Amino acid sequence: MSATPDSSGSPMLTTPVEIPDHLTKPVGTPGPRLLEIERSKASFSPKDLELYLFGKDYIERRDRILPILENEPAFNKSRLHYMDRGEKYRFGLRKEKRLTQISMELGWDDDDMHMAEGLLDLPASFNLHRSMFMKTLRAQTTEEQKELFLRPAERYEIIGCYAQTELGHGSNVQGLETTATYQPESKTFVLQSPGLTSAKWWIGGLGRTADHAVVMAQLYTPDGKNGQLIKRGPFPFVCQLRDLKTRELLPGRTIQDIGPKAVRVFVQSRVPMVDNGTMLLDHVEIPHVNFLAGYASVDPDTGKFNRPQHDKLAYGTMVYIRANMIQQARSILARSATVAIRYCSVRRQFADRDAPQTDDGRQPAETQVINYQLVQARIFPPLVQAFAFHFTGKEMYRLYHLNEEATRAGDFSVLADVHATSSGLKSLCTLMASQAIEECRRACGGHGYSLASGLASLWSDYLPQGDSYMLTQQTGRYLFKTFRTLLADRNAPMSKENRTADYVLKYISNPEAKAPFKYVGDLSDPQLFVDAFGHRAAYLTATALRKRDIEKRSWNSILCDIFRCSTAHSQYNLVYNFAKALQEDEELKSQRALHRVMTTCFELFACQTMDTEAAEFLSSGYLSPKQHELLRNRVHDLLAELRPQAVPLVDAWNLPDYLLNSALGRQDGDVYPALVRFAQGEPLNRTRFNVDIHSDEIELGPEEGGRVSSKL
Amino acid sequence: MSATPDSSGSPMLTTPVEIPDHLTKPVGTPGPRLLEIERSKASFSPKDLELYLFGKDYIERRDRILPILENEPAFNKSRLHYMDRGEKYRFGLRKEKRLTQISMELGWDDDDMHMAEGLLDLPASFNLHRSMFMKTLRAQTTEEQKELFLRPAERYEIIGCYAQTELGHGSNVQGLETTATYQPESKTFVLQSPGLTSAKWWIGGLGRTADHAVVMAQLYTPDGKNGQLIKRGPFPFVCQLRDLKTRELLPGRTIQDIGPKAVRVFVQSRVPMVDNGTMLLDHVEIPHVNFLAGYASVDPDTGKFNRPQHDKLAYGTMVYIRANMIQQARSILARSATVAIRYCSVRRQFADRDAPQTDDGRQPAETQVINYQLVQARIFPPLVQAFAFHFTGKEMYRLYHLNEEATRAGDFSVLADVHATSSGLKSLCTLMASQAIEECRRACGGHGYSLASGLASLWSDYLPQGDSYMLTQQTGRYLFKTFRTLLADRNAPMSKENRTADYVLKYISNPEAKAPFKYVGDLSDPQLFVDAFGHRAAYLTATALRKRDIEKRSWNSILCDIFRCSTAHSQYNLVYNFAKALQEDEELKSQRALHRVMTTCFELFACQTMDTEAAEFLSSGYLSPKQHELLRNRVHDLLAELRPQAVPLVDAWNLPDYLLNSALGRQDGDVYPALVRFAQGEPLNRTRFNVDIHSDEIELGPEEGGRVSSKL
Repeated sequence: MSATPDSSGSPMLTTPVEIPDHLTKPVGTPGPRLLEIERSKASFSPKDLELYLFGKDYIERRDRILPILENEPAFNKSRLHYMDRGEKYRFGLRKEKRLTQISMELGWDDDDMHMAEGLLDLPASFNLHRSMFMKTLRAQTTEEQKELFLRPAERYEIIGCYAQTELGHGSNVQGLETTATYQPESKTFVLQSPGLTSAKWWIGGLGRTADHAVVMAQLYTPDGKNGQLIKRGPFPFVCQLRDLKTRELLPGRTIQDIGPKAVRVFVQSRVPMVDNGTMLLDHVEIPHVNFLAGYASVDPDTGKFNRPQHDKLAYGTMVYIRANMIQQARSILARSATVAIRYCSVRRQFADRDAPQTDDGRQPAETQVINYQLVQARIFPPLVQAFAFHFTGKEMYRLYHLNEEATRAGDFSVLADVHATSSGLKSLCTLMASQAIEECRRACGGHGYSLASGLASLWSDYLPQGDSYMLTQQTGRYLFKTFRTLLADRNAPMSKENRTADYVLKYISNPEAKAPFKYVGDLSDPQLFVDAFGHRAAYLTATALRKRDIEKRSWNSILCDIFRCSTAHSQYNLVYNFAKALQEDEELKSQRALHRVMTTCFELFACQTMDTEAAEFLSSGYLSPKQHELLRNRVHDLLAELRPQAVPLVDAWNLPDYLLNSALGRQDGDVYPALVRFAQGEPLNRTRFNVDIHSDEIELGPEEGGRVSSKL
Repeated sequence: MSATPDSSGSPMLTTPVEIPDHLTKPVGTPGPRLLEIERSKASFSPKDLELYLFGKDYIERRDRILPILENEPAFNKSRLHYMDRGEKYRFGLRKEKRLTQISMELGWDDDDMHMAEGLLDLPASFNLHRSMFMKTLRAQTTEEQKELFLRPAERYEIIGCYAQTELGHGSNVQGLETTATYQPESKTFVLQSPGLTSAKWWIGGLGRTADHAVVMAQLYTPDGKNGQLIKRGPFPFVCQLRDLKTRELLPGRTIQDIGPKAVRVFVQSRVPMVDNGTMLLDHVEIPHVNFLAGYASVDPDTGKFNRPQHDKLAYGTMVYIRANMIQQARSILARSATVAIRYCSVRRQFADRDAPQTDDGRQPAETQVINYQLVQARIFPPLVQAFAFHFTGKEMYRLYHLNEEATRAGDFSVLADVHATSSGLKSLCTLMASQAIEECRRACGGHGYSLASGLASLWSDYLPQGDSYMLTQQTGRYLFKTFRTLLADRNAPMSKENRTADYVLKYISNPEAKAPFKYVGDLSDPQLFVDAFGHRAAYLTATALRKRDIEKRSWNSILCDIFRCSTAHSQYNLVYNFAKALQEDEELKSQRALHRVMTTCFELFACQTMDTEAAEFLSSGYLSPKQHELLRNRVHDLLAELRPQAVPLVDAWNLPDYLLNSALGRQDGDVYPALVRFAQGEPLNRTRFNVDIHSDEIELGPEEGGRVSSKL
């Protein structure tokens, strides 16, 4: 032990504490051995499941890029939790530069970069430059604008951000206050913030980094009667913010970082790397060419405005972004479950109440926490939900591509259904994922609270926040429309990919249907759950629609009902896509061991979700009280059935330790020494403090060791 | 604007950004005016409700102490969010010293100190000294030990902590590994950590502050056959850790701070002030007098052990601590609701879908977020739950005092019921409070993520963590026992304060009871909900008991059922105590306006809780699907009914801005300028950065402003 006791007052600062050698071993069976035992119980090959889930290309790419990141000093995460906000920003900026350099040196493509960012899990100040800034420049520009803005951005000669949200306006783009008024005489747009609430706010990279922004502003053109200004709605404009050389702000731009955020459990350790900023624009003139006129135009000479033709095209992109979000939510569930399941397999607490006393009267040994049913009920659902999200994410990508093809051929029949479903799924999946992080963190007990748990840094700051509830109205509107159409004409033309029509038609033809199961064995048919969730979604839509169309209730007074419709519709899709994979995916069906364990995961997902939402199944009369009891008991049995496969299943996701960055979720299970190493890094341990309440001195400086008078 | 653009490269650092004068006003109706309108709608006097809730003494105490805290520079919270961990610890230590000095100067009593700590909401390094350390020294010491340890601790001449939790052991005290072995020859106990997992961990104040600890260790005494060591279970020992003068560790103690924690949304900004520590003890000898032998003894000469007599006494204290926790959870709910309700009254987003277009074709004005039913459904429940917790907390204090009197008279008849109920309530109330913080924070949209929301610092690090689920087994065991007793003999003697027996007997006499309501008007009888929640709690207990006693299922296989029993029992108590206040509290009944608004709060609490748990009411056949629909619609009507009273109701809690420390929840509603001021404090805004990816330089130093070459 290096901290030697010395009451004569050694002037030396305390050096980091070392553990006496004979106390460095945990008491009882060590974690690595416990995980080894867990792994020996696998009923399937985790490697095979990994290959099935991710495919060969993904795995090869990951295995090629991971060692590069692990060995790069600028990407070393070990000091991250000890840094203050300023250090984190600097660390993040260094990471951005180094990552850019490496990607250029090694000639990475977009997929490589995407993989690297995913494994790094360190979004920093170039985050919005790489995503929304570049994306907008690619999608909404003319060739001239590409030369002017996109090429320099690709070479990182300019660094951009995406300035949409305002202090007083979150997700309501139509309500933005910043204006862009066209002046034909100077051929410029004038950007103006009309007041404090119109300040751009939360803009990633704006605070200290970006020298350019895509600014979303309300376009006003002087083509009304007698040259009157007419409001044309929000459009994107490129605006330079800072001098490229001195980084000083250009005139009319009031810009600053908005201060510490990252309140959220899952952004705590990462968001401080991003310099979210605020900006007020005061009579900032920009040239005509800075209007990103992808789908609209303003005549430079007259100021005459031409409205965009294909509004619907943007919806396709949103479907794609939301498919990404579902896959991201899947990763978050898998990460949360990995940490919780591994740690709860290593952690032991209390003895089983039914365990016999040992012969010598001592207490029975403590049991692995994962053996408790109540713990299983909290940490297994996120695991099976991860698989559910996987299959739905995959299906959403398929539908996205299908829709892209169809719209190119002028066929918009798939779009509405896919778009509405993607809205509901975004809302549900992001909520479920954030709840899962919290549930898994709590299931880790006290250590879940430590930043060493790795559950602290699970979320991404670029997930649009706060609007997940409002979004469900889009799904609700679509469900109402579909229901009304089919109610008026059961043979109304629908795309064969339209799953909503399927279940609505089934419901209309038999609204009094009952769940057709009597024995536990009946629950082994996936179709039973597809039908049940479809019936419930239709029942809720019918109930809400009656309030709107018959009772003529206000939209606002049925918002809770609409939210429930959207949730039910989304859960139906999760169940449907998972069931379909089990029923139809030949790759899965041909591997019996995988198919078997995926079936167990599906049953737990379906039964547990149905039990959680049981009130609505019971209320419609679809489920009887007796059936509900059967179902609830089935959940308990499935938890026990899944128990021995829990560690092998999280192994199948094969999330690298570098990504998990968790003392609790380590692949090798050596939890306790890792927690101690984490503590040893704390800088506070190098200082001694003056606790004498009568002294104003706080820190005991090296030369002051003897100055404090002891009162005893 | 002070940041002047200067592309020739001014060497000046950017000074904090100032907003141009004409842009400092929010667009639209300002927040203060909106709250003023809300307040004008009050159907009752918030001041009267405040007086009814808190009483005159509490309010006088608060009003006396608050200005002292607000005006003390050491307690100024405005820089807190910008500090790194080390600064926060130092800030906390300074606060502890100053608070102690002030309390001594002004002669504060315990209630004053408790009030001050509550208003400060800044638990720091003396936290455990003041609570668990002193409490143990008061409760478990002889007169000699009081002189030796308690008096110096009261004078802050020694600073203590409470070392119970170990790295491998959270709440299972019986499983602790640290040993204390008595040696009659030297009349000392030897404290020993047997290995890494036995390291004391998470101990508040241990890391850098405390020089003494109460160490919980397994006592071994040499009074077995032939002087064999016998394990006697965990007991507290006083152990000096550091030299009082030099603060160096004494021999055999390996101690360090465990590093950053505060992962949790609600501890983020505060826990870094506490130096949670870890400690390994290696052959540390302490004198016989350091064994805190309140209820047990070890003969100094022979080492013979005498077991404590009154195990049950400790249960009374636990009831008291849990009553405190319920009151604390109440405050957390009230704080969360205050911030969310005020901010959602100021914040506007989207227009109502049913709102007419204005004549000139412009969009209708955006509506206050609090007008959305879906928002109400998220932020009103915490508000009415706060009132429910208030009445139950009050009742638990009453039962605690009643029980204290009874046990002094040798009557233990109240204890079991009160203790079991307090276990279940602790579990439920802490879970509900933490969920409410999160829900309210999300309902604030993007700004909820900012530390400026004040929802970041809502929780207390001294709340025992992670064991809220395991605890429900205590409640379950008691419910089983009571049910079995009454099933065997309906006339078995029960205390008249035993509420559990009430509902169990009612259920046993009529297990097939149905909810007696048909019209919405029927729901205005509070007794209806008392009966309904009682029936459901008994039904769940009967169902779980059948599995245990008839099906002979293992305890572990019914843990989920037991958890549900405990939750149902606790919700019954919340409903019962709230209903009882409405029915019987003369002070409330005599004030019609208060009684009226509390009745609305009760109805929303009862209906909403019943709807959330509807599956269990439906499953037992107590509630019919039709009744459930009625109930669900009633919830929506009650949200609308409560809407105009929301701001007046949070005003009644009268939580000072100093405590809320929230830009969003400000009493005056002037939200947006406060958010901007928060941003202006960010130190990053004083630095410019080098974003050139080809340069390794990160920060643009003052003299280096011109060095970076621009690429455009």
